[in-house]
Amino acid sequence: MNAALAKRLGAIQYDAQGRLRHLLTLEGLQRDTVDALFTLADSLVEVGGRSIKSVPLLRGKTVVLLFFEASTRTRTTFEIAAKRLSADVVTLDVPASSTSKGESLLDTIANLEAMQTDAFVVRHADSGAAQLIASHVAPQVAVVNAGDGCHAHPTQALLDLYTIRQHRGGFEGLKVAIVGDVLHSRVARSQLAGLRLLGVDDIRLVGPPTLVPPRLASLGGRVCHDPREGLDGVDVVMMLRLQRERMTGGFVPSDREYFALYGLTEAALAAARPDALVMHPGPINRGVEIASAVADGKRSLILPQVTNGIAIRMAVLAQTLGRGSGGDE
Amino acid sequence: MNAALAKRLGAIQYDAQGRLRHLLTLEGLQRDTVDALFTLADSLVEVGGRSIKSVPLLRGKTVVLLFFEASTRTRTTFEIAAKRLSADVVTLDVPASSTSKGESLLDTIANLEAMQTDAFVVRHADSGAAQLIASHVAPQVAVVNAGDGCHAHPTQALLDLYTIRQHRGGFEGLKVAIVGDVLHSRVARSQLAGLRLLGVDDIRLVGPPTLVPPRLASLGGRVCHDPREGLDGVDVVMMLRLQRERMTGGFVPSDREYFALYGLTEAALAAARPDALVMHPGPINRGVEIASAVADGKRSLILPQVTNGIAIRMAVLAQTLGRGSGGDE
Amino acid sequence: MNAALAKRLGAIQYDAQGRLRHLLTLEGLQRDTVDALFTLADSLVEVGGRSIKSVPLLRGKTVVLLFFEASTRTRTTFEIAAKRLSADVVTLDVPASSTSKGESLLDTIANLEAMQTDAFVVRHADSGAAQLIASHVAPQVAVVNAGDGCHAHPTQALLDLYTIRQHRGGFEGLKVAIVGDVLHSRVARSQLAGLRLLGVDDIRLVGPPTLVPPRLASLGGRVCHDPREGLDGVDVVMMLRLQRERMTGGFVPSDREYFALYGLTEAALAAARPDALVMHPGPINRGVEIASAVADGKRSLILPQVTNGIAIRMAVLAQTLGRGSGGDE
Repeated sequence: MNAALAKRLGAIQYDAQGRLRHLLTLEGLQRDTVDALFTLADSLVEVGGRSIKSVPLLRGKTVVLLFFEASTRTRTTFEIAAKRLSADVVTLDVPASSTSKGESLLDTIANLEAMQTDAFVVRHADSGAAQLIASHVAPQVAVVNAGDGCHAHPTQALLDLYTIRQHRGGFEGLKVAIVGDVLHSRVARSQLAGLRLLGVDDIRLVGPPTLVPPRLASLGGRVCHDPREGLDGVDVVMMLRLQRERMTGGFVPSDREYFALYGLTEAALAAARPDALVMHPGPINRGVEIASAVADGKRSLILPQVTNGIAIRMAVLAQTLGRGSGGDE
Repeated sequence: MNAALAKRLGAIQYDAQGRLRHLLTLEGLQRDTVDALFTLADSLVEVGGRSIKSVPLLRGKTVVLLFFEASTRTRTTFEIAAKRLSADVVTLDVPASSTSKGESLLDTIANLEAMQTDAFVVRHADSGAAQLIASHVAPQVAVVNAGDGCHAHPTQALLDLYTIRQHRGGFEGLKVAIVGDVLHSRVARSQLAGLRLLGVDDIRLVGPPTLVPPRLASLGGRVCHDPREGLDGVDVVMMLRLQRERMTGGFVPSDREYFALYGLTEAALAAARPDALVMHPGPINRGVEIASAVADGKRSLILPQVTNGIAIRMAVLAQTLGRGSGGDE
Repeated sequence: MNAALAKRLGAIQYDAQGRLRHLLTLEGLQRDTVDALFTLADSLVEVGGRSIKSVPLLRGKTVVLLFFEASTRTRTTFEIAAKRLSADVVTLDVPASSTSKGESLLDTIANLEAMQTDAFVVRHADSGAAQLIASHVAPQVAVVNAGDGCHAHPTQALLDLYTIRQHRGGFEGLKVAIVGDVLHSRVARSQLAGLRLLGVDDIRLVGPPTLVPPRLASLGGRVCHDPREGLDGVDVVMMLRLQRERMTGGFVPSDREYFALYGLTEAALAAARPDALVMHPGPINRGVEIASAVADGKRSLILPQVTNGIAIRMAVLAQTLGRGSGGDE
């Protein structure tokens, strides 16, 4: 990423006092912002283990979950995160086809903002939607990108990085493989941005040429079509979900053939370090991109990722919403 | 409205102690009831501006949002209003076609009431549905009409009137134009009832003969087919939303022709007072009933209306539910 | 039920300390567990009558309503019950056809559990689904069956029994008729198990041979195809809902004919004791399985059942979730 773009993406995500205002993408973030989120998440992970899991950090705040694209899983994690922070949560499932009664996206946002809501958690099929919204809301309103097109899914990447930190202590000298449909993956793009921000240099993008074309090297990783080379000696294997619709799009010949070549089996994993971490954003396709023995195996962090996802989303909401917006307290 | 009807509509909306029990229609309400709601809304508008926006007025109350007709926007405002009052909110979206498992409307209500719920906020495609429900619930249960057929949408009209009061101080001597599809509009009917209750005499109903037939004069306004005459010297222009389905129903020839004749442009608005207020219940059809320059212009109160809508709905819920129903406190 | 099965069903529903951990079916429960739930419900019924209906028993707990089969009514009662206990409630309506993105039931559960949720209230079209889930969750997580296939609907039966107790004082020497589509009814199966657990010996299963085939005697009731014989001298008539889809399945010739033969009319009810209680799980089909005069008559407990349903579900959630799971308080 060039410096001008990074600066612009930083400018839109921070407020005048340099505090995180929106979370749209990991590009343009400062390293210490990520560290601060991780430190906050550490204490919120601890809250999740308690019998009483709620904290009053966002009491009296209204968080709008604005989903233009269906996503039960991500929506549920944000809903739980916001409720554990004691926020009022309002969910709007807006069918992409018909924005409500033909109203434009920005009119919808202006109206919801006029209801004095405090945050929008946005999922949209179009890349850049969250950024567009962020550039139009009032100073006290926070926007969190819950996935926009093929562009970014920053809370997913943050929880992945947080999980690595939890199990490795840090990021120095790590070798990481991102495996699967990198071409269409907003998760992969955010992971790449995050890994590079945290100083990881050895990142391999692993998959068939249809899903990992050579030009993706420009994202900042090394393209490997040979999985054995891609996984050789890595500390972390970050699997991507294979979208079923790719099967019919000519990107992948068949489930079985994909699994034979790029599926993460115990045998394939033998190329990695013996203590390599296995991660996946879920939901997993057993027997397509990952073998059940690996998904359920002792190196798998798939479920800890989910647990950490709640804490990370609580941290992001608490940080962006809790800036003390000239309130009355 | 004749006196007998007014008396009957008053009788059903007040309890034996003369306190507002249901809000079904503005017809039959007393002027000081509206004033009391406005005074309460004043303090609740202030709550909306705080960092912590919730108040415990309805803690431990259960508010049921019962939507037999889809309405993301109105439902969301009631949901936010009820949650900011600390009520428990339960939403039921009941497809009009199939009342749940063939159960009748009144059986549905009797069941929900048996769950010891405290209020029903009802949206229904049939005129009179909220009134029917109100006539069957127990004394401690409140019913709020969130729009029934072409009949009434009292909270929308109240928020419109509240917005006028906020910007004009009062209603004496006001000239008001209601513009658009008056024929099918429950909003217009409630606005008319409210304006007359507050003493506004000069009300013009403006639109083509298909949407504002001469017989509508019986509603209490002057019918104007000429927009210049209709807007001449008015203090307030209350636009109505043009329902898209009217386009194919022979009521309106086309978007473009409607806009040319009745669309609220800067030029059309020149007939009104220079400081005329522009209002619209939303969502707006840009370039159909209103020009973007006007909708987004300095005289537009469209977004303040939305903000006030939360406060008004909080006031209505607090008033009807907070009557001290022989509780235990 | 044989002793081995009862023991197995008991073992899965109690924790190591003998406390109720899941509620999956009434089979295998101990009599004093039911008595304890009823005693707790007594105090929670009283909460429902207060002006402030919430209690902080489950504050900071996350209850997931996991509905693989649509059910507005049951879902709403659980939602109200959980919210009155101050729990955070997350609702997932999962279309049976497509478990989210092809994920398996157990992967869905594992993920939701990783979000550190505390309870699953499960409705599923497959018999045994709740039990399957219960056998896979962590020790601190509770599973409540909200209806699985034709198998069990234990909270419905508990609220029915609780309503009988409330109106009769106890169960000794009671004669009970269960009338209608026993063959396909999970409600009937749970009622039978519950009545027998509470010592009721005289239970009649009443309906046409297509809906009450002779082999159902193995469930523990006496099969009666003659409604007069079935209702003769009974203290309680528990009607079942006739599923409309049975009409076309050859089970019932027509609405009218079914009503003429098995519909509960005042005349049919004359065979029962003069003070017989009339119950129905709702929603009722007026003029199909029950006459309006009976449903709305003075012996009908249909609406009290609904009220008690909230208290019973609160009791079940409080009991299973409030075991003090090694928390931090």
